Amino acid sequence: MTLEGAAAALVAAGRRLDALGLVPATAGNFSVRLDARRLAVTVSGRHKGFLTADDVMVVDLDGIAEDPRKKSSAETLLHCGIYRRFPQAGAVLHGHSIANTFLSRAAGNDLTLAGYELLKAFPGLPTHDAEVTLPVIPNDQDIARMQRGLDLLWDGLPSIPPGYLIRGHGSYVWAPDMPAALMRMEALEFMLACELEERRQPR
Amino acid sequence: MTLEGAAAALVAAGRRLDALGLVPATAGNFSVRLDARRLAVTVSGRHKGFLTADDVMVVDLDGIAEDPRKKSSAETLLHCGIYRRFPQAGAVLHGHSIANTFLSRAAGNDLTLAGYELLKAFPGLPTHDAEVTLPVIPNDQDIARMQRGLDLLWDGLPSIPPGYLIRGHGSYVWAPDMPAALMRMEALEFMLACELEERRQPR
Amino acid sequence: MTLEGAAAALVAAGRRLDALGLVPATAGNFSVRLDARRLAVTVSGRHKGFLTADDVMVVDLDGIAEDPRKKSSAETLLHCGIYRRFPQAGAVLHGHSIANTFLSRAAGNDLTLAGYELLKAFPGLPTHDAEVTLPVIPNDQDIARMQRGLDLLWDGLPSIPPGYLIRGHGSYVWAPDMPAALMRMEALEFMLACELEERRQPR
Amino acid sequence: MTLEGAAAALVAAGRRLDALGLVPATAGNFSVRLDARRLAVTVSGRHKGFLTADDVMVVDLDGIAEDPRKKSSAETLLHCGIYRRFPQAGAVLHGHSIANTFLSRAAGNDLTLAGYELLKAFPGLPTHDAEVTLPVIPNDQDIARMQRGLDLLWDGLPSIPPGYLIRGHGSYVWAPDMPAALMRMEALEFMLACELEERRQPR
Repeated sequence: MTLEGAAAALVAAGRRLDALGLVPATAGNFSVRLDARRLAVTVSGRHKGFLTADDVMVVDLDGIAEDPRKKSSAETLLHCGIYRRFPQAGAVLHGHSIANTFLSRAAGNDLTLAGYELLKAFPGLPTHDAEVTLPVIPNDQDIARMQRGLDLLWDGLPSIPPGYLIRGHGSYVWAPDMPAALMRMEALEFMLACELEERRQPR
Repeated sequence: MTLEGAAAALVAAGRRLDALGLVPATAGNFSVRLDARRLAVTVSGRHKGFLTADDVMVVDLDGIAEDPRKKSSAETLLHCGIYRRFPQAGAVLHGHSIANTFLSRAAGNDLTLAGYELLKAFPGLPTHDAEVTLPVIPNDQDIARMQRGLDLLWDGLPSIPPGYLIRGHGSYVWAPDMPAALMRMEALEFMLACELEERRQPR
Repeated sequence: MTLEGAAAALVAAGRRLDALGLVPATAGNFSVRLDARRLAVTVSGRHKGFLTADDVMVVDLDGIAEDPRKKSSAETLLHCGIYRRFPQAGAVLHGHSIANTFLSRAAGNDLTLAGYELLKAFPGLPTHDAEVTLPVIPNDQDIARMQRGLDLLWDGLPSIPPGYLIRGHGSYVWAPDMPAALMRMEALEFMLACELEERRQPR
Repeated sequence: MTLEGAAAALVAAGRRLDALGLVPATAGNFSVRLDARRLAVTVSGRHKGFLTADDVMVVDLDGIAEDPRKKSSAETLLHCGIYRRFPQAGAVLHGHSIANTFLSRAAGNDLTLAGYELLKAFPGLPTHDAEVTLPVIPNDQDIARMQRGLDLLWDGLPSIPPGYLIRGHGSYVWAPDMPAALMRMEALEFMLACELEERRQPR
């Protein structure tokens, strides 16, 4: 993918996620893979609903910026960790919602989604009669350490689920391209909103 | 109705239902009747808020595609089941909402709506002082089997309600044309949201 | 006010109330006073978010249509009842929200709003340190009878509050002109949403 | 900043806050600093989602209007109080949300936000592992008295938090410029919505 195409995809993704309420304030960051060694990622500190092509930059798989005058999103190394581990990953999205913030604060080490038709939006689940258990990891401002923890966690899982939550912080999903990643994010957030609704019920 | 007119109606319906939050990810599917033997229906796997005329295809009342290179929405046979049984049905809508997902998971075999002014949006109810009991059927990836179950259920009812819910999956409504179907969907989802609110109340 | 100006005001009000989620399906109706004897009101059965000037018609203060081929909104006599009683009323709005539907079903004969800054949007309340008690009347498909009940109720009140709710049906507000009526509706619905939030709290 | 630039910033802020549901009816008011002695502030009584440049006026740091024919927002002296005390403040926003209205009515004299990633949007908090305690002050139609109370409260605090709530009325935030203030408002309201969600949980 060209940098121009990548920038257009990131700008459009930001507008869509803003319309869905998933990128409040400076929250959220997105990327697309450019080639085997590089990704295009959003710069730090911008509102993701109002990005321009100038707010997109190139980093390598270790998160090193091509243009050292630009500063990439704080969680860039989480994006790199996904592209390094999953060759089929072509786009990564990180969003904040009230549902994912609340549920990740209330949950233990994982969160299970079961019986939803929208589970079919996740890879390898041709039916709703399934369940997915997403890891919920502790928040950490040392992003490299958070990614090392994730890699250890993934190493121990029989199969790696298609996303994860960071406690009090947000959700990450990835997919082969940006349209697929946006649909996966919408499906995840819809199911989290349903889970939140279940937790609101009087006991 | 021409295929061009049908495609325009389906594209517009998708934008409206997306604005209302009823078609997250690849969820939802819609159709309009073209003539006594055929319908125009959305293709599989697209986001319904961003349809183009290319995402619309023609199938017959058994769900067989005119153009075998296109794949219609997974639930096409549910649309066919409605057009076969109800000669006056001209448009069918299927949507996912947090309310219909939650309530269809929590409900038994049906869900009753009573005392709402918006019940007047349903056929044969000239007053709010009425109630409608909508079937809630189990989800099933074998759509032909799900439709056979629905036909059996409808056979046993003294009068057939103007919609139904699939557990954890969504709602179906139909009407003589697309504008009427959209209004019926909005009325149904509004009343489901009110029902959800009642269930949230502390006991 | 000219009929053209009135129609433009009603079309714009419909778009705004649709954006706020207050006119689902065919719900809601609006009017503006044209002169001492006549009002412009929305026709029956249209979606109020997609009105055109053709969907507006003229009736007199008894609800009799100038053009007998057009059918005005079912609740036209409630609009007439307001214009007859309140000479300063220039615009009337009726909307449906989840909050007003739920609260009017759960409430007794009235609903009190107290301590909200937005109470200042109501007439005669220069401070938040006040309260307003809005009548909640039973729904009735005999609109003339509903209006007679309202008139009796108003006769018995020391001062008439600036709106009312119909159980399971919606809210009515009026003001000297349409911009003021829209602001009053927004203020009312905001406070009702806050009241709903209070009722959700665990006890 | 020129008055033209300031007016454009206030008009745009109003549209954004209206889209986020933070300025219902006539609620909310905003300002930007023009120079050491003057600010541009919204006039009283307008809907903040539909401002024009004519709805912006200039006052000095005591709230005295340059053009005596215009009436500034009722809470102008709260804006002045912020600009007088914080030389780095370049923009002030006041918004109403269901979350801030409900929580400010339910809270005591303050409200603590802890453990949210979005706390990083506030100044001096480079990490989520922090907490901010926002004052909740009583509502008062005597704005000068409310500001004197705030000044006394601020005098007694070891460090002044970047915003406050008025009971049943809304939230205030400020920042060096309008884009930063909008992001701070979005971050605050997102965290308040999460807090509201926690209070809804059954006990």
